[in-house]
Amino acid sequence: MITGTTELVAHIGFPTGTFKSPMIYNPWFEQRGIDAVVVPFGVKAEHFAATFRGLRHLTNLRGALITMPHKVAVMELVDELTPAARVAGACNAVLRRADGSLLGDQFDGAGFVRGVQRKGFDPRGRRVLVSGAGGVGSAIAASLAAAGAAAMQLHDSREAAAQSLAERLRQHHPALQVAVGGNDPAGFDLIVNATPLGMRDGDPLPFDMARVSPQTMVGEVVMRQDITPLLAAALARGCAVQQGKDMLFEMIPAYLEFFGYGSATPEELRAAARFDLAEEAA
Amino acid sequence: MITGTTELVAHIGFPTGTFKSPMIYNPWFEQRGIDAVVVPFGVKAEHFAATFRGLRHLTNLRGALITMPHKVAVMELVDELTPAARVAGACNAVLRRADGSLLGDQFDGAGFVRGVQRKGFDPRGRRVLVSGAGGVGSAIAASLAAAGAAAMQLHDSREAAAQSLAERLRQHHPALQVAVGGNDPAGFDLIVNATPLGMRDGDPLPFDMARVSPQTMVGEVVMRQDITPLLAAALARGCAVQQGKDMLFEMIPAYLEFFGYGSATPEELRAAARFDLAEEAA
Repeated sequence: MITGTTELVAHIGFPTGTFKSPMIYNPWFEQRGIDAVVVPFGVKAEHFAATFRGLRHLTNLRGALITMPHKVAVMELVDELTPAARVAGACNAVLRRADGSLLGDQFDGAGFVRGVQRKGFDPRGRRVLVSGAGGVGSAIAASLAAAGAAAMQLHDSREAAAQSLAERLRQHHPALQVAVGGNDPAGFDLIVNATPLGMRDGDPLPFDMARVSPQTMVGEVVMRQDITPLLAAALARGCAVQQGKDMLFEMIPAYLEFFGYGSATPEELRAAARFDLAEEAA
Repeated sequence: MITGTTELVAHIGFPTGTFKSPMIYNPWFEQRGIDAVVVPFGVKAEHFAATFRGLRHLTNLRGALITMPHKVAVMELVDELTPAARVAGACNAVLRRADGSLLGDQFDGAGFVRGVQRKGFDPRGRRVLVSGAGGVGSAIAASLAAAGAAAMQLHDSREAAAQSLAERLRQHHPALQVAVGGNDPAGFDLIVNATPLGMRDGDPLPFDMARVSPQTMVGEVVMRQDITPLLAAALARGCAVQQGKDMLFEMIPAYLEFFGYGSATPEELRAAARFDLAEEAA
């Protein structure tokens, strides 16, 4: 129940109609007796800077979830960015600290890495191939680097995007071996599809699956189906896989910890949520 | 339940800890299936203008309840003010209209007038005495004028405040006979205590009750007790009375109508509220 002492987490984006976060976080806050609420804040791109500068002074604001179209624009408006946000080139969470200063972070990648870790894959010392150097691919690459990957190959049909991500990775993770190259999956411990391939019927597979070893883990960001054609092919080869939605479910505990609201397992959050979390993928 | 489509009514003030509005409005919204939520927004005076200018762009903002210390400052930040707000010299509600423009209004006085009307007192053509020309007294005077009072005497120990209120009343209600004078209650149809007298033990009564006719209605703004010493004396003389809290209960339906959320009786709101409304007076 909202009272005068309730803290706010502003979910800022536009349009807000499809936001699911209030139905995930708020029932969990209620269940745990946490006096906080996630509230949708519809802000168009042209008003974002002014609105965000105003919102930062709300005395009961704990922080913000930042979604489309503000993930890049917000980077200029916070006081500090984590390496994950800087490497990803985007920020999707802002914490208002006790002194009023704002810390920007990025949890798309953290969600992906938590997921593979929960499945027993430790990125430390491993060789990974990330195909797709856009927002989500950059975030996943940043988090895999932070989790200790030894070598990373980046592939993107727009080579400049891959080169730019490689630059940012080298700057923040000097020990990581970074290469820009093709999408041949042979020889990698983990391959990640962070391209849109698989979102439409008839899309080609993002990798030549005949060259994937059964020991390679295969990660997917497409959430259109639980088992995309890529994952079906990977399972057929005996690979361990991670579904697109797993990233989403794993991200929420990372946000909770960031905001200082304890933690939760994806299962606990699923049980508390007031809608079918699977709808998120629709 | 808050979703991505939920509209916001921002209750803006500082500090927010004692805000009761979320516990009054939100259960009522739930009960009626209205997809809106009242949320506390803590804003200090020094940040109010910047924050308010940013908030006005929230696409899902229906409006704002404005409380201490912003009721005067907000007047400069809206696009239009009702006569009630202009006469009162304060604004406690802002509606964001479909075109994004902001209308400021004032409901302290509306609450008072609705209360006396519900008790069968029609201000039209009546002679009223308002003692206390501060924020609440000004608001009550404005609403009594708007409701058709014929003659109004204003009393305040700070005569400049009474003169200034008289000026504003004359400007917006040229047909009203306005006088600044003493607090002799003889000959009035309604007398209103809008001073702080009665908030502390041992305060003198605001009027000489021996000179009050049993036909005079006696209104009180002090909410410390249901029956203040003034009301006890009035009841002893056989007068009809209005308690301080009645103004509060009657104000909420006026806000609901202003925001376009239908209406409700004070009784319906009391029944839905998730706290004892009587606490508000504490």
